[in-house]
Amino acid sequence: MLYHRLYPIEFNHCDPAGIVFYPRYFEMTNSVVENFFADEVGMSFAQMHNAGMRNGVPTVHIEADFMAPSRLGDKVAFTLIVRKLGGSSVAVEITGRMGEELRLRARLTLVWIDNMKAARWPEALRAGLAAHLEEAA
Amino acid sequence: MLYHRLYPIEFNHCDPAGIVFYPRYFEMTNSVVENFFADEVGMSFAQMHNAGMRNGVPTVHIEADFMAPSRLGDKVAFTLIVRKLGGSSVAVEITGRMGEELRLRARLTLVWIDNMKAARWPEALRAGLAAHLEEAA
Amino acid sequence: MLYHRLYPIEFNHCDPAGIVFYPRYFEMTNSVVENFFADEVGMSFAQMHNAGMRNGVPTVHIEADFMAPSRLGDKVAFTLIVRKLGGSSVAVEITGRMGEELRLRARLTLVWIDNMKAARWPEALRAGLAAHLEEAA
Amino acid sequence: MLYHRLYPIEFNHCDPAGIVFYPRYFEMTNSVVENFFADEVGMSFAQMHNAGMRNGVPTVHIEADFMAPSRLGDKVAFTLIVRKLGGSSVAVEITGRMGEELRLRARLTLVWIDNMKAARWPEALRAGLAAHLEEAA
Repeated sequence: MLYHRLYPIEFNHCDPAGIVFYPRYFEMTNSVVENFFADEVGMSFAQMHNAGMRNGVPTVHIEADFMAPSRLGDKVAFTLIVRKLGGSSVAVEITGRMGEELRLRARLTLVWIDNMKAARWPEALRAGLAAHLEEAA
Repeated sequence: MLYHRLYPIEFNHCDPAGIVFYPRYFEMTNSVVENFFADEVGMSFAQMHNAGMRNGVPTVHIEADFMAPSRLGDKVAFTLIVRKLGGSSVAVEITGRMGEELRLRARLTLVWIDNMKAARWPEALRAGLAAHLEEAA
Repeated sequence: MLYHRLYPIEFNHCDPAGIVFYPRYFEMTNSVVENFFADEVGMSFAQMHNAGMRNGVPTVHIEADFMAPSRLGDKVAFTLIVRKLGGSSVAVEITGRMGEELRLRARLTLVWIDNMKAARWPEALRAGLAAHLEEAA
Repeated sequence: MLYHRLYPIEFNHCDPAGIVFYPRYFEMTNSVVENFFADEVGMSFAQMHNAGMRNGVPTVHIEADFMAPSRLGDKVAFTLIVRKLGGSSVAVEITGRMGEELRLRARLTLVWIDNMKAARWPEALRAGLAAHLEEAA
């Protein structure tokens, strides 16, 4: 099951060459993950962080390829799929496309944190993540 | 006629105190203005900037009051109204509210630039702005 | 007594028009204030925020004029002076110049927060702020 | 020959968990590259971009591992080394450390662009990059 989000490319994202500055793409990949957790996995970042900061899902590894630039006014369609679900981690792949054109592909590994340490996923979250595993797609 | 935009407060906007960091509010006020120009005034920032950078609407003055903090997970409703329409400038007021609570009020003065200099608004844009003047509301 | 900081304008700060995007200027004004508190007032933001978030100096009002654009590669010299020192607030003026040219002038009002509420400045901080009052300059 | 830059972790970089938000780390890696080109390779981003946008060094691939979090007030020492120098590309490795502790390791591939297309490095830039090749270290 794929998860989708559409991001319009605004002034804020663009550099003097008129294209998306790559740190802004990572603000988008983080936003995709954040909305995915709220909408599909069953726990928002607000629920994780506002309650005394006990939980979180920091990114420990990221790889990204930027195939073609995105410009002011483009609308980039992001898609997230779960590639691998570990005991306390998850690997997701996020792609961004404008029409047929692949603009970027990013792979992120996130870790579930409980009380400052990596911990096993709670069962409810694990089920939410598993529903988006590639082989379940 | 009021112009509305809703911004969910995401991780990206929040500081170590868990509230919106004020430079991120200004990314939102810029986004409100940008979408207002595309949706209501009749020229997108992409149209202004991609065509050889001849046009733009830089902000020359800004005043803002932050009445109450916004937190991760809040949805802040922004409203824009045109307060004053000059020959080559426009003053807009943007407020952000969560339910009944006023979170911020910002007043911005923008100038129409043609070929690196302040210039009179083209008639089509002037008409789009005039429709949102406070006294027309 | 004036407080000075120099900011080189980097790629990160610039928009598709090749000039500083105003929300990035506010990241700089916040950085000026942050370094001023650490260097001159006697308490860093880390000391305020890491110790259980009890203290902080949120900005409640800001006014800014942008007189001339700054470009990639410019080095903008920022100067801070204290304009008014209240019981629990302080008004500072920050200017940014490139050589003789005034690029921006910002006036910010900050409030001392203790345990989520406005509170009187501790004496040590008040003394640090008072040393930078305009009339003491 | 290693290239070094020190970045103090400021309020602007930190998220609601009080640690550096990873898109801000990528603003730092971009700043390291930008200063490396100006200081060591012999062409600043301003020189590349202000002259009609003919040149640039976009990042086409990035990989990063985040080993330990950085907090408000930390000073992170970044080091850049050139790993591989191609005809029109360069692979660099950037590490960030606080004292002995490795906080992040990033590998970036950049491409030299001339007139919107990948092109062979000019000889002067190639020589500047070659001086920082790992085997020359």
